[in-house]
Amino acid sequence: MTVTSDLVKRLRDRHARTVALQFPAGLKRQSVKIAQALREEGFFVIISGDPCYGACDLALDLLAYADVLVHFGHTPLLQHPDVIYEPFRVDFDPAVVEKALPLLKGRRIGLVTTVQHTHLLGEVGRRLRSLGYETVITPGEGRTPEAGQVIGCSYGSARIPGASDILFIGTGIFHPLGVQLATGMHVVALDPLTGIAEEPDARKFLSKRHALMEKARDAGQYGIIVSRKQGQNRHPLACRLASLSDRAYLVFMDEVSPDELLNLGIAAYVNTACPRLSYDDQIRFPVPVLTPAEFEILCGVRTWDDYIIDEIA
Amino acid sequence: MTVTSDLVKRLRDRHARTVALQFPAGLKRQSVKIAQALREEGFFVIISGDPCYGACDLALDLLAYADVLVHFGHTPLLQHPDVIYEPFRVDFDPAVVEKALPLLKGRRIGLVTTVQHTHLLGEVGRRLRSLGYETVITPGEGRTPEAGQVIGCSYGSARIPGASDILFIGTGIFHPLGVQLATGMHVVALDPLTGIAEEPDARKFLSKRHALMEKARDAGQYGIIVSRKQGQNRHPLACRLASLSDRAYLVFMDEVSPDELLNLGIAAYVNTACPRLSYDDQIRFPVPVLTPAEFEILCGVRTWDDYIIDEIA
Repeated sequence: MTVTSDLVKRLRDRHARTVALQFPAGLKRQSVKIAQALREEGFFVIISGDPCYGACDLALDLLAYADVLVHFGHTPLLQHPDVIYEPFRVDFDPAVVEKALPLLKGRRIGLVTTVQHTHLLGEVGRRLRSLGYETVITPGEGRTPEAGQVIGCSYGSARIPGASDILFIGTGIFHPLGVQLATGMHVVALDPLTGIAEEPDARKFLSKRHALMEKARDAGQYGIIVSRKQGQNRHPLACRLASLSDRAYLVFMDEVSPDELLNLGIAAYVNTACPRLSYDDQIRFPVPVLTPAEFEILCGVRTWDDYIIDEIA
Repeated sequence: MTVTSDLVKRLRDRHARTVALQFPAGLKRQSVKIAQALREEGFFVIISGDPCYGACDLALDLLAYADVLVHFGHTPLLQHPDVIYEPFRVDFDPAVVEKALPLLKGRRIGLVTTVQHTHLLGEVGRRLRSLGYETVITPGEGRTPEAGQVIGCSYGSARIPGASDILFIGTGIFHPLGVQLATGMHVVALDPLTGIAEEPDARKFLSKRHALMEKARDAGQYGIIVSRKQGQNRHPLACRLASLSDRAYLVFMDEVSPDELLNLGIAAYVNTACPRLSYDDQIRFPVPVLTPAEFEILCGVRTWDDYIIDEIA
């Protein structure tokens, strides 16, 4: 990760003097190097030291101290005149897509990936077409502005009518599981760095969620978590959920941490902040942290057959 | 901890419909009980689930969702028309003061305590005077609005000219150490619950701080921490400190946590947020977290003989 001449030009075009930098955890170690490079270009630089999970989590309050906020690692979610987004790209060899072919069930392939790899999705498509496949890449929109992009709270680009398979290119099992739950289609996940392809299985995941819901059923109280982060705040949804139970209380949080959930001492929570907290981070939490739909099922206003993955519109 | 009729009256007088509650960690377990009691009185209640260390750390943004914020456990630091402060009082037997007598060196005793016990300081004074001592209790002011009150970032009420001893009544060693460092006087610390009296010894503390400063001396970079909490923000001081070294960068943080300091990967920090972070929490941090004065000594603009404890004016 470096300071590009394009970034310097964009900062100069805005006549920025003080520049605030924000990084997700995986890139944070680069912050001083980037700050040094920008300082050498004549800027005064400040760094956001808080956790950052996405563009839902912009450090806009640093604009009280800086002319521009440069947000690294994510695509825009909120357009703000004083924010520059610098997504982080990770290259791979597009030929790796051939590793996924044995798992594909048909010939019409929907392609999705995360922001690190969107720049190579077109080339992956060309490879597949040269092998006789048809490919579909959904144009960018809303929370996922790049073609074929999915994020942990939005899988719209994977809803491709008529596709035989959705091929997710990226690391980890969370996103392809989300794609499968969001679309109900056959999904193949290809890690472009290791070349390992697999088919995510939502059944084990759903059975774990079911067990959590049962554990939460007899909780004396429910804490309905509302995020203080502007891009994760679903206050109206939280109010609607709270109205489903007289044991429910709205709890506003910035960082949803195991320590704070323990300190509050509530026996079960419902999370209207980042959906990944319920799914990815449940293992860190001392008590069940349900999704909105799971709480609706618990309260009898939704059936288990209507289980949906939590997304932020 | 209960909902007093006085609190209900004050909320009704303000025609509050939605009430936000904020608690420090030690009282957070009470939040649902308090919320239930207020709900029964007809209020809609929301809870702040974030960490809270003092009135420096008001959840004012919850006033976007509530008519009044009730902040439990601390005295006012910032006056705000929509904030009600509900300090938490812990009783003790004032006769316990006799346990401290063997350690007192003179007859003119300055009395200080923390917010939990200020309501009993007058009675402690009467006991001492009945035993032939003279007592001094400084009127409240600024960050410490109650007579004789000290907090972890302000020891003004302990600066009592002509006192033979400062008697601190309270729990833990941090506050009496702070009183000793802030005043340079003979200090006796009396735990009113156990009856144990002791004389804090700043020498060991200072030798630890000296070792941390030496460890920080060769750091490649310094992160100058600026708090995003309104009552802990010392941005001008941070800018002045940053100007002392071309290896220093301003880092803005809300929660100063070991994880985030590690993620940033900076070899030493200077803390302009809550002073207790440097003193109490250093043991949790992976690298030195110096006070402003310690960094000044490191940069050669203050001498070790001028070591001062960090306070927020």
